[in-house]
Amino acid sequence: VEFIATGSELLIGRSLNTHVRRLAEALVPLGLQVARETTLPDDRSAIAAELRAALVRSQVVLVSGGLGPTCDDVTREAAADALGCALVEDAATLDRLRVRYLASGHELTPGRRRQALVLEGAAVLVNRVGSAPGQRADLEGGRVLFLLPGPPAEFQAMLEDHVTPWLRRHAGGLAPIVHVWMVCGLVEGEIIERLKEVGFDPGPLELAYCASPGQLEVRLTAPPDHKAGMARAADLVRAALGEHAYSETREDLAAVVGRMLQHRGMTVAVAESCTGGLIGQKITSVPGSSAWFRGGVVAYANDLKTRLLEVPGELLAAHGAVSEPVARAMAEGARRRLDADFGISTTGVAGPDGGTPDKPVGLVWWAVADREGSRALSRRFFGDRATIREWAAQMALDALRRRLIR
Amino acid sequence: VEFIATGSELLIGRSLNTHVRRLAEALVPLGLQVARETTLPDDRSAIAAELRAALVRSQVVLVSGGLGPTCDDVTREAAADALGCALVEDAATLDRLRVRYLASGHELTPGRRRQALVLEGAAVLVNRVGSAPGQRADLEGGRVLFLLPGPPAEFQAMLEDHVTPWLRRHAGGLAPIVHVWMVCGLVEGEIIERLKEVGFDPGPLELAYCASPGQLEVRLTAPPDHKAGMARAADLVRAALGEHAYSETREDLAAVVGRMLQHRGMTVAVAESCTGGLIGQKITSVPGSSAWFRGGVVAYANDLKTRLLEVPGELLAAHGAVSEPVARAMAEGARRRLDADFGISTTGVAGPDGGTPDKPVGLVWWAVADREGSRALSRRFFGDRATIREWAAQMALDALRRRLIR
Repeated sequence: VEFIATGSELLIGRSLNTHVRRLAEALVPLGLQVARETTLPDDRSAIAAELRAALVRSQVVLVSGGLGPTCDDVTREAAADALGCALVEDAATLDRLRVRYLASGHELTPGRRRQALVLEGAAVLVNRVGSAPGQRADLEGGRVLFLLPGPPAEFQAMLEDHVTPWLRRHAGGLAPIVHVWMVCGLVEGEIIERLKEVGFDPGPLELAYCASPGQLEVRLTAPPDHKAGMARAADLVRAALGEHAYSETREDLAAVVGRMLQHRGMTVAVAESCTGGLIGQKITSVPGSSAWFRGGVVAYANDLKTRLLEVPGELLAAHGAVSEPVARAMAEGARRRLDADFGISTTGVAGPDGGTPDKPVGLVWWAVADREGSRALSRRFFGDRATIREWAAQMALDALRRRLIR
Repeated sequence: VEFIATGSELLIGRSLNTHVRRLAEALVPLGLQVARETTLPDDRSAIAAELRAALVRSQVVLVSGGLGPTCDDVTREAAADALGCALVEDAATLDRLRVRYLASGHELTPGRRRQALVLEGAAVLVNRVGSAPGQRADLEGGRVLFLLPGPPAEFQAMLEDHVTPWLRRHAGGLAPIVHVWMVCGLVEGEIIERLKEVGFDPGPLELAYCASPGQLEVRLTAPPDHKAGMARAADLVRAALGEHAYSETREDLAAVVGRMLQHRGMTVAVAESCTGGLIGQKITSVPGSSAWFRGGVVAYANDLKTRLLEVPGELLAAHGAVSEPVARAMAEGARRRLDADFGISTTGVAGPDGGTPDKPVGLVWWAVADREGSRALSRRFFGDRATIREWAAQMALDALRRRLIR
């Protein structure tokens, strides 16, 4: 499988090419790899030349970008040049485009209409996110060319809807067995220690770690014929991770917490200070979160902690906003004032300024409140403002998860 | 300038290739561009073959990765294959490696010693961050090959210390004049119309657009010797964009709004429904936002809109949550209850579910309230949940910006 990214914006530093990573994430579970990747500017002849070379080297060639309505979108034409075939207007796509543009009050200009041009004989791949469809051309010798739109959300949808299903059908049997755990609250070194304790020995299996702020992905991979060995190894990893693992499906932490709440018919409200809305944003990124999320208060100014969350002024005066009692009072206040079963809170020093010897940049308190009371934890995180905030949001969500499995 | 990234980790989704972006950011101010980029696995013959092809196509070829101590680090050998030259051990590098490894309590194993191998005649580029040095080989016909280490921090240091200075010396006088505007509320087509109206003619200048949800970057680039023409053109673009442009420095919209508020000694509070905390998160991403941000309420449940923001229950019953009167009441309530000079709000259908014929997925109302009253606007956005929410947050922030420049 070879990948060609087109788009001058990728070569002048304006956009980051995340496509390779997304594609690799789709391929690896199928036992496939990206053999090479090339990024080209919006240059019809350069794209056509590389396409010709790629179709000699590789069986499956995927191209991203250049399918839109503007004059620098030249991938359709370049592919037609490379294959020596014509472009034809697809009637069904044209209808879809017409409806789409009319609905948003725009005309179907000649440029926009170009998006309905497909390689003669190619399959049209419906784009559920954007306007330009993808295309799949089945070529001589079993070679296949996919043209996919460039915007990341559209590219991702195309991978899910069309590319992965096709590859799964055509590359069956190669797929390694993969097991993934998402972990919050343990670092790599601690996991290695725990694995030793339970007597884990990878043998032909591979164990890999990928850390990001507030979460760690643990990935165990076995060759296709090691099903029994994989089951035994997975049991050991599961035992070693215990309640620190929040998902075996890469489900987002907020979604995991939401499922647990919904299952119990319970709700949560949040009180955010240093995270400033990030927890609410994470929660409401989960479709259907209105079933279990009541709402939140971003109490950035101290007097609002008192006014909206009933944090006693004396607590703030005595301990400061970044403190255990204030974190607890915020979580309790959110629960009470927003009429939820649980309240969670964050208060910390996200930096870059505002740190003191006593309360340095990175110090965060978070708390969970329920009917019976509240409990707060704290840690000092390192990194920039965004990293510290991300950690704080994840730890607060994870604290609620741990409360729910108790 | 052509770039070859080596490293199997880039092709299996474990690492994101940020090198192209870093390189482009270094090149663009010099008036240079990355002509193409290729990512290859750690495969000596594939790297050698691509190097040969690249040195025919491009004058300057940069390679990243494969200079370390392990057996999959094969770039040195591949480059020697491609150039048909020998690898020799560099004495000064060997000394540096010995000191470096001893200082950290490690031995200089044969593998580690390989890092001192350089292409015969190449200049050694000292690595101030890691162990393996970079190399620069000056070839026939003025062609130049740079070998650079792959870890992002080392790659970045190499760019700063060696590549950029070399390119500046050899590509002097090419640096274009660049002017950037960040725009909210106009699409590309509308800008093109407005530019026509003011009589803008790009001539030798280049005008480019880069759209993302809720913002559009307009970039005007002129050749180095077109200073006067650039000034005239920039005045026309500025006139065409008018108050739709919120920044000429790529400053973030929330930061722009914050600066305007701080300048006036005024504050804002937010009431979020469909954005669920995203506006608060954007605002509090700006360091020092506590000077002008009071806080926010995420009123996800309808009864909280009444309880926390004093939105009359009759309004909700009569018009539904996604409506002009409710958006206005939310903004007014936030302003009043959180004691701010301005209140801004969002309420909409972020999807994927919950749309009706009357209020389809993507419909968003947003409002700004001040001492005198409030004003709401609405639009239907297209895309996934994240895209719709991003648009809603940007439009609400932009509405406040427009209120502030009135």
